[in-house]
Amino acid sequence: MTLPQGYRYAALYAGIRKVAKPDLSLIVSDTAASAAAVFTQNQAAAAPVRLGQKNLAAAKGIARAILTNAGNANCATRTGDKVASETVRALAKALKVPANQVLPASTGVIGVELDAAKITTHLPALVDALSPDKFYEAADAILTTDLVRKTATASLSVKGGAVHLAGMTKGSGMIEPLMATTLAYIVTDAVIAPADLKKMLVRATNRSYNCMSVDGDTSTNDTVYLLANGASGIKLSSADKALFEQALTHLMEDLARQIARDGEGAKKLVTIEVGGFKTDKDALKVARQIANSPLVKTAIAGSDPNWGRILMAAGNAGVKFDVPQVDINFQGMAVCRKGLAVDFSEAELTKLLDEPDVLVQFQLRGPGKGRARFFTCDFTEGYIKINGSYRT
Amino acid sequence: MTLPQGYRYAALYAGIRKVAKPDLSLIVSDTAASAAAVFTQNQAAAAPVRLGQKNLAAAKGIARAILTNAGNANCATRTGDKVASETVRALAKALKVPANQVLPASTGVIGVELDAAKITTHLPALVDALSPDKFYEAADAILTTDLVRKTATASLSVKGGAVHLAGMTKGSGMIEPLMATTLAYIVTDAVIAPADLKKMLVRATNRSYNCMSVDGDTSTNDTVYLLANGASGIKLSSADKALFEQALTHLMEDLARQIARDGEGAKKLVTIEVGGFKTDKDALKVARQIANSPLVKTAIAGSDPNWGRILMAAGNAGVKFDVPQVDINFQGMAVCRKGLAVDFSEAELTKLLDEPDVLVQFQLRGPGKGRARFFTCDFTEGYIKINGSYRT
Repeated sequence: MTLPQGYRYAALYAGIRKVAKPDLSLIVSDTAASAAAVFTQNQAAAAPVRLGQKNLAAAKGIARAILTNAGNANCATRTGDKVASETVRALAKALKVPANQVLPASTGVIGVELDAAKITTHLPALVDALSPDKFYEAADAILTTDLVRKTATASLSVKGGAVHLAGMTKGSGMIEPLMATTLAYIVTDAVIAPADLKKMLVRATNRSYNCMSVDGDTSTNDTVYLLANGASGIKLSSADKALFEQALTHLMEDLARQIARDGEGAKKLVTIEVGGFKTDKDALKVARQIANSPLVKTAIAGSDPNWGRILMAAGNAGVKFDVPQVDINFQGMAVCRKGLAVDFSEAELTKLLDEPDVLVQFQLRGPGKGRARFFTCDFTEGYIKINGSYRT
Repeated sequence: MTLPQGYRYAALYAGIRKVAKPDLSLIVSDTAASAAAVFTQNQAAAAPVRLGQKNLAAAKGIARAILTNAGNANCATRTGDKVASETVRALAKALKVPANQVLPASTGVIGVELDAAKITTHLPALVDALSPDKFYEAADAILTTDLVRKTATASLSVKGGAVHLAGMTKGSGMIEPLMATTLAYIVTDAVIAPADLKKMLVRATNRSYNCMSVDGDTSTNDTVYLLANGASGIKLSSADKALFEQALTHLMEDLARQIARDGEGAKKLVTIEVGGFKTDKDALKVARQIANSPLVKTAIAGSDPNWGRILMAAGNAGVKFDVPQVDINFQGMAVCRKGLAVDFSEAELTKLLDEPDVLVQFQLRGPGKGRARFFTCDFTEGYIKINGSYRT
């Protein structure tokens, strides 16, 4: 795996979270990079989200660094905006870059004041530690209760040579039991203008992170950052731009699947495929409704081929369809045809559903071309334990 | 408690469900009653739902009986429509009433053929058993995995005397692990025209059952039936109509709260009060989002005063608000003022949250008059056990 050229990474423990594992993570591009972002749509967006939006606009889509702390969301606090801008300014000074070229992110407990000094006193050591080899350390430092590291890389042969992408993300883990957050950072050494980068990122996000859920809740801190520093020297032709966007989408789907698989308490990655609707939008609504139904998710946890729950959830999506047109498969095995039960070996299917990867297909017969794919996880007692039993 | 005049009830075990407890329930009005109904909006509505709609329309809002079977939803089967109309016709014959004056309902497993003969062979005995005293037997026979019977009664002194209401309902219990259904039947002896009854029922449902959830899933069989047989001889004045609607709403709220309290695995009834929004509709969206958030529901299960999760869920409702305007209370105790943490005794509040009734208040400062109240339950490991662990 070749990482993109021209990036350095660092991580260290600054004492923000109680457990002594790195909670400060830094990504720096050696040169000014094109940057694009997608942020939470939650009304209660955290201070670093608001500052990230402001900086990106002020710097006209140019950035040099992404600074993340784990252990405190810096959200709904008295000093949130001040802490975010103080830490960003301190890092900019240490890196000798404009302050609006630093992009911040935080994840962790909400409503608890974040001490800026914990970050600023550690910035010199963090900057000293920067190295092209510390990608995985930086990826680990943004995790919270995630059980596994989540990264993906891709290389793309294009006219003029190869460009590289690397991504890191964190899932819906809880810090203290207060907030789940998704963060994702992707870096590439391709030459791409900020405006193009933004369009690609929005489309790729819609086809990856926006088709994934663990529990249907959206954090105040969700952030996706994409940097393109052009260090490969390779400017993409318009055909290669399409290829690049495809690679970006696949990489982000890969990261999204990793999040779903590592959902709190989850034992299974569940992929929902929906087809035959009038529009992709309709299909996505149905897929999302199936994916977020607690009755569907608990049935899958129990390896129970309850296609009635799939039909029920689909019927609640606010999208019209005729039941006699519905075909449903579990793990590729037909359980419902034309809206009715078909004979299948329950023993065999239950065994197939014990696999760590579960595929649910909901297909309408007819000419409709609208389709969607959605990633989620099963819903186990572990989820309840993680999120409810801290005090009992 | 005085039950409404002019109704008889019966229940017996017809062998539809495996457990030998009554699974056929009958309510009969001695005379033709005004009738109104509210049905599931699920696209995959069951055969009895479709027939109930058809009969009510054909009989122009007049009905004589409500026939319910538990143990099989009569949904997504080859013979569903035939079974529904056969059983309804057989009952109509036994009662000597027009077939379109019989309203059917089913609850239970989906996608499994329902044997009409199981019902029709038992109809003579069911009709023979009819008695004004068997209201509670009829109420028990519509239950599935409900742990407790759910009924409510009300009397109203109006000009000319007293009118009475009685309601029975079932909650989101599972039969086999396939489908959750809510059924509710309310009978009254007031004189009310079908058109008036319909309007009252829609408004009362919007303020009761439509402000309640257990897991956010809507069954294919959800049905509310309201009968008014006029046996009291009392025609309501227009002032008394308003009083009656109020009593109906309170009775249905009472039934809805009973369902939420007995939600699968639930230990607590949770009431969400939201205020200060522009419109009641906005407030309801926010209340519903808070009520359906698994992170909120698991926190309440754990008696954890996580107001950050309340803020996060509210922020996802698609309704704009300013975080500095937000006040949040748990059990009447302030935990957040102007969007920021306030000091509170965590030990004291945790103790208060151990109570079986939990009140969450989310209030915006400012002139907005939009408000809503929503009932739900906490989310415990019991829910997962009930819905996922049948085969493990």
